[in-house]
Amino acid sequence: MRILLVGAGGVGGAVTRIAARRDFFEHFVVADYDGERAAAVAASADDARFTAARVDASDQPAVEDLLARHRCDVLLNATDPRFVMPLFRAALAAGVHYLDMAMSLSRPHPERPHELTGVKLGDEQFALAPEWERAGRLALVGIGVEPGLSDVFARYAADELFDEIEEIGVRDGADLTVDGYDFAPSFSIWTTIEECLNPPVVYERERGWFTTAPFSEPEVFDFPEGIGPVECVNVEHEEVLLMPRWIDAERVTFKYGLGQEFIDVLRTLHKLGLDRTEPVKVGDALVAPRDVVAACLPDPAALGDRMRGRTCAGTWVKGTKDGAPREVYLYHVADNETTMAEYGSQAVVWQTAINPVIALELIATGTWSATGVQGPEALDPRPFLDLLNAYGAPWGLREM
Amino acid sequence: MRILLVGAGGVGGAVTRIAARRDFFEHFVVADYDGERAAAVAASADDARFTAARVDASDQPAVEDLLARHRCDVLLNATDPRFVMPLFRAALAAGVHYLDMAMSLSRPHPERPHELTGVKLGDEQFALAPEWERAGRLALVGIGVEPGLSDVFARYAADELFDEIEEIGVRDGADLTVDGYDFAPSFSIWTTIEECLNPPVVYERERGWFTTAPFSEPEVFDFPEGIGPVECVNVEHEEVLLMPRWIDAERVTFKYGLGQEFIDVLRTLHKLGLDRTEPVKVGDALVAPRDVVAACLPDPAALGDRMRGRTCAGTWVKGTKDGAPREVYLYHVADNETTMAEYGSQAVVWQTAINPVIALELIATGTWSATGVQGPEALDPRPFLDLLNAYGAPWGLREM
Repeated sequence: MRILLVGAGGVGGAVTRIAARRDFFEHFVVADYDGERAAAVAASADDARFTAARVDASDQPAVEDLLARHRCDVLLNATDPRFVMPLFRAALAAGVHYLDMAMSLSRPHPERPHELTGVKLGDEQFALAPEWERAGRLALVGIGVEPGLSDVFARYAADELFDEIEEIGVRDGADLTVDGYDFAPSFSIWTTIEECLNPPVVYERERGWFTTAPFSEPEVFDFPEGIGPVECVNVEHEEVLLMPRWIDAERVTFKYGLGQEFIDVLRTLHKLGLDRTEPVKVGDALVAPRDVVAACLPDPAALGDRMRGRTCAGTWVKGTKDGAPREVYLYHVADNETTMAEYGSQAVVWQTAINPVIALELIATGTWSATGVQGPEALDPRPFLDLLNAYGAPWGLREM
Repeated sequence: MRILLVGAGGVGGAVTRIAARRDFFEHFVVADYDGERAAAVAASADDARFTAARVDASDQPAVEDLLARHRCDVLLNATDPRFVMPLFRAALAAGVHYLDMAMSLSRPHPERPHELTGVKLGDEQFALAPEWERAGRLALVGIGVEPGLSDVFARYAADELFDEIEEIGVRDGADLTVDGYDFAPSFSIWTTIEECLNPPVVYERERGWFTTAPFSEPEVFDFPEGIGPVECVNVEHEEVLLMPRWIDAERVTFKYGLGQEFIDVLRTLHKLGLDRTEPVKVGDALVAPRDVVAACLPDPAALGDRMRGRTCAGTWVKGTKDGAPREVYLYHVADNETTMAEYGSQAVVWQTAINPVIALELIATGTWSATGVQGPEALDPRPFLDLLNAYGAPWGLREM
């Protein structure tokens, strides 16, 4: 297998170092808008299979050319969600498989944004599903940790743990702290603002997909392995759009353990218009306020040395098995100390990055084989979960 | 008298329209970095004595040239505090009087910012006091409403209402709301951030000037004329630096009725580094985060039509008179409905603007006559307070 990774940020760097320990591929190109960053990440693998390239992710022909030049079989997109569509189209045009960890962006309903969906996450990608089918290539969308591992958990629960499912709720929480900073998000603030301030989407069998106001339905979820209770709120996330396409459930939600401080920060950014992505004029410059917020905060990928604690991603499922009620939480915990010591990556980006590498290995070995636009829950969960254990990153199950 | 006004923002516009009703001057130049804005403000006076000019307030020689060209006697500075020093120096070099409404900026103590003062508000201006004396010209600093009228009130209290003063506390509160905005400050956000996030300064006779952490010593102050109780906190403000130079008091403070929401917004901006004035790199642009915040918010001077309510500026004084304890609050309330109807200016900028016009009239008529760098409390308060009533903007006194 010959791989093109686009995006040498935190997740791209972790993908590179995780992949370097595996032998399922022959060639791996690390590409980024910043050529020096790509070169540094490729060098961090310390492996002759890795090479670096400079590419603008929004330039579809340039990406196609890069895929052709390196005779790649697959494009792994590790950029931020603004670049999903050009990369997705480049892979389709070049006739290669495609993987990403976030789906094409949503647009709120113009009149009733807190009730109805407008353009949903992934809609633009699913619209091209017939073309992927015709091309005989796989676009595996949302194969990070959330979405990604969370969807694999849901498929596994549906296949092996439940006869009927009442609700699937992805629940994400952490006890991470960053020494020396008043406020330092552990993940891309651009993406966090996008997913937290967009109207959260919920699925119910009777209503289909609908939206609510931001930060709706707060609940305290008790996370495992010592993290403990964290306040979680509804957030727009891909799982809610993916799971109901392949799994039969009454209700699907995603709640993020933001904590009150982070919610207050996001509310304030929104109140002041600092979450906006349309440029404003500042002196002679035109800048998007959200980009300024990101520029003011430390790069989350560079904070690993100052971070402490664990992050937990998982899928809570409620339903029945053999006529009896059942409730489980399938989860994965990453400890920053371990991920820093073993991979030089902080916990949140590392936990995101390991999943597309596993997926690439399953595709390379033919264990996972499909065409069209597919979510992780469209494929067999067992080999994925086994390989996660084999990578030394075991998952857990809590009966509730 | 021939006047050069530099700064045609909200306050400059209100100064122009207030001055247009008075006959103490022959010529009034409205100058701004934005020549069109200056022209529009000068035209709003609808009076042949007013003319417009374009000038960069940071370009001292250009300001001197403008003063000479129009044979001005006085420069009134209505820009933001970054431009105090070049304008102050231009007036000194040109041999004209100078008035401003905010003083030269402070710099926190490098090691103990929340205990000790570093460079204090106005230090750079007072350092040039001997040169103003030698030139025989007056630099009347801090002659807006706060500082300004608040200092006049303090002088009046010391002269006529008290034998001994225990504490002078400027207290500012409002019940203003802006229709159609989640968050719309009624005054320059740049200046508000500057004064609220700098370490507040306090004066005590024994300790001299010292600083505290931002938002210290919260107290609820009951404002008059129906505004009612508002939570006030210590804020860095010129009065604390001015009053002790001329008035004998045990303690001098300034507390601003920010309210909890505004305090939360300011804390969040600081936490995220969005209050910073040093430029950050955003794509190919270099912008100061604080300028981006200002660019995202509506122009406070343009909100008058949507504002409702009143703003109160005043000076609370505690001490003794004829052996008995006494406590008074001397205040001035501006109602947005009135200021919009009469002057087309919103209440906060109008209340700031009326005071330098009164001061100019007292200087023009020779009622106020002094040389050197002087605060409003260095001059006779009675004619100022009488003229305030004559302008139709009566002040009040509450015995407590």
